Amino acid sequence: MTPDYSARRARLLASLGVPEDTTVYVTNPVDVRWLTGFTGVTSSSGQAVVGAVAHLLITDNRYTERALADCPDIEVYIPPRPPMGSLLSRLAAAGGRRVLVDESVATVAGLRRLQEAASEHGISVEAAALPLPQLRMDKDEHEIAALRRACELSDAALEKALKHLHIGMTEKQFAFILETAMVELGADGRAFESIVAAGPHSAIPHHSPTDRPIERGDLLKVDFGALADGYHADETRTFVIGEAADWQVEIHAAVEAAQRTGREALRAGVSLGEVDAAVRAVLSDTGHLEGFIHGLGHGVGLQIHEEPFFAPNGAGILAAGNAVTIEPGVYLPGKGGVRIEDTLVVRQSDAESLTTTPRGLRVLC
Amino acid sequence: MTPDYSARRARLLASLGVPEDTTVYVTNPVDVRWLTGFTGVTSSSGQAVVGAVAHLLITDNRYTERALADCPDIEVYIPPRPPMGSLLSRLAAAGGRRVLVDESVATVAGLRRLQEAASEHGISVEAAALPLPQLRMDKDEHEIAALRRACELSDAALEKALKHLHIGMTEKQFAFILETAMVELGADGRAFESIVAAGPHSAIPHHSPTDRPIERGDLLKVDFGALADGYHADETRTFVIGEAADWQVEIHAAVEAAQRTGREALRAGVSLGEVDAAVRAVLSDTGHLEGFIHGLGHGVGLQIHEEPFFAPNGAGILAAGNAVTIEPGVYLPGKGGVRIEDTLVVRQSDAESLTTTPRGLRVLC
Repeated sequence: MTPDYSARRARLLASLGVPEDTTVYVTNPVDVRWLTGFTGVTSSSGQAVVGAVAHLLITDNRYTERALADCPDIEVYIPPRPPMGSLLSRLAAAGGRRVLVDESVATVAGLRRLQEAASEHGISVEAAALPLPQLRMDKDEHEIAALRRACELSDAALEKALKHLHIGMTEKQFAFILETAMVELGADGRAFESIVAAGPHSAIPHHSPTDRPIERGDLLKVDFGALADGYHADETRTFVIGEAADWQVEIHAAVEAAQRTGREALRAGVSLGEVDAAVRAVLSDTGHLEGFIHGLGHGVGLQIHEEPFFAPNGAGILAAGNAVTIEPGVYLPGKGGVRIEDTLVVRQSDAESLTTTPRGLRVLC
Repeated sequence: MTPDYSARRARLLASLGVPEDTTVYVTNPVDVRWLTGFTGVTSSSGQAVVGAVAHLLITDNRYTERALADCPDIEVYIPPRPPMGSLLSRLAAAGGRRVLVDESVATVAGLRRLQEAASEHGISVEAAALPLPQLRMDKDEHEIAALRRACELSDAALEKALKHLHIGMTEKQFAFILETAMVELGADGRAFESIVAAGPHSAIPHHSPTDRPIERGDLLKVDFGALADGYHADETRTFVIGEAADWQVEIHAAVEAAQRTGREALRAGVSLGEVDAAVRAVLSDTGHLEGFIHGLGHGVGLQIHEEPFFAPNGAGILAAGNAVTIEPGVYLPGKGGVRIEDTLVVRQSDAESLTTTPRGLRVLC
């Protein structure tokens, strides 16, 4: 069974209330994939046309076979040269008089060029706010299955990689072992460049792995995830190497309690700001709120960062089927930092964590 | 020695002829990196301001240390919240009255938001054609050194991976071995998703590796490259497995001759169209022009595809220091295809191929 892409396109049209002579021209790669199933979207190939006049996945002859295999319920259209002229001519012939493009995606130059080309076919082009990031917040069972697989692969890869961890291994080496394990276990790749941060580096929220060796007494922060069928896992665990100092135990406990509170605050109907406030209250009670210098979490799916985004006073309301991360952290510059992060799916009265690696402080090596 | 980023910024300002009260606000990640050296550019962090009023690399507190390490000759600016308001206020205080953004990068919504915010500070914002893709065509010695390293790693990784190739191995397995070899040898990663296409799959110009086993009699097309210091290598070789059929020998010879002609046509002062025509003439003479269904090549650098792009009748003129690929191919649908590709640097009277793996037909396994 494949996802019901035509239902997704119908939701887009319904949400915009577009008239029959209007088509939506979608060029954002993840939106095109979500609306059609096409996995070969690149900067130069793969756009979608959605509307009463036509539903099309547009590509070129390099991708014909892949598009036909990927797209079960939409016409694969390979326009003759010049491609844009051919497309506009086809839309005009079918009664198309107006095209909407995404104002958050279309560039100033791109819109102008499209308007110039369309005017020759009696078609007007307008930039509009397309609600695709909001529509993509509601994950269907296929999307949750892909996220679950990405998260299971992430958990399994971490356990596999930790078996090879030893004192003296560099951050880069551990990142390589971890990412190799993901692919060996069946992931399509990594969801993003892994953060492996040892010792004082763990106090840098976003840190690229270096040749620094992992040493006894280090905090070791690992923020990583696997990619499966286009969907991204996002997970962080922080370990201690050899022996835990009191300050490390203390900030780890503070982050662990805050992160649990965040996970347990998730349910359909709660606002982003309520979840954020619950986590901040725990960090404040333990005296570590100042050390929390980034956002609490974000939506995750076809993009590693997508709607919704947690923020203090965030007004958005979570719904069942939303997929989000909860990732508080506390960072002590020059010393070290702890972050714990899971990818979760919101349910009616709670949330399920798709990443399940134990969160308690583990002393390794 | 580090690249002379301030000279690059001066070239941008000189090419635009901007007055003293005008700054250029650059947000395209590769352009920001090229203008400042900052390696931590993401969708949310890393913009550059270039102008008489200020030269700034703008980031946030997640990237402070990396920005200070990366950017030797520009002020690292972490604006207080709200970041855009703080930046505009600073520019206005320094005498800034006008900001230019890239019309090929700024979205319709992004330009509108920036104009609204800037008007409160007495600053006007205009979208303009920024010549950054053209400026980036001229590679300096640091860039050529990075390209050379990426290409050397690619050549070495291919030789290493070929030692493990055996009949029955799948396309995916070979891609994994090849990409692992790149990283083991010191690459920062792969430049793009490798194309490993066996048998009839080799007739698909862009093909993602599958679980199809590599079999005796297959053509095996491998299009891949390593990433080094942000610079991309791009290389294709096509092998035959076990024994070569006459038609395979024939199309390989046709592509090899065409590709050599393309490489030998490169020099400062030649037009893109002249090189393209020289290659097409060879393919035409061998009766295989119809099987060549994509472009001849493209510029390569901080992006895998960048200016210049070869095209029939392409009017652009190559200059010494341009880095380009030459990659003709012939594809027989359902049977197989051959592509040979190198990454080259244009010199005064010829070009140097940075990828050097032998191009003659190799029978493997």
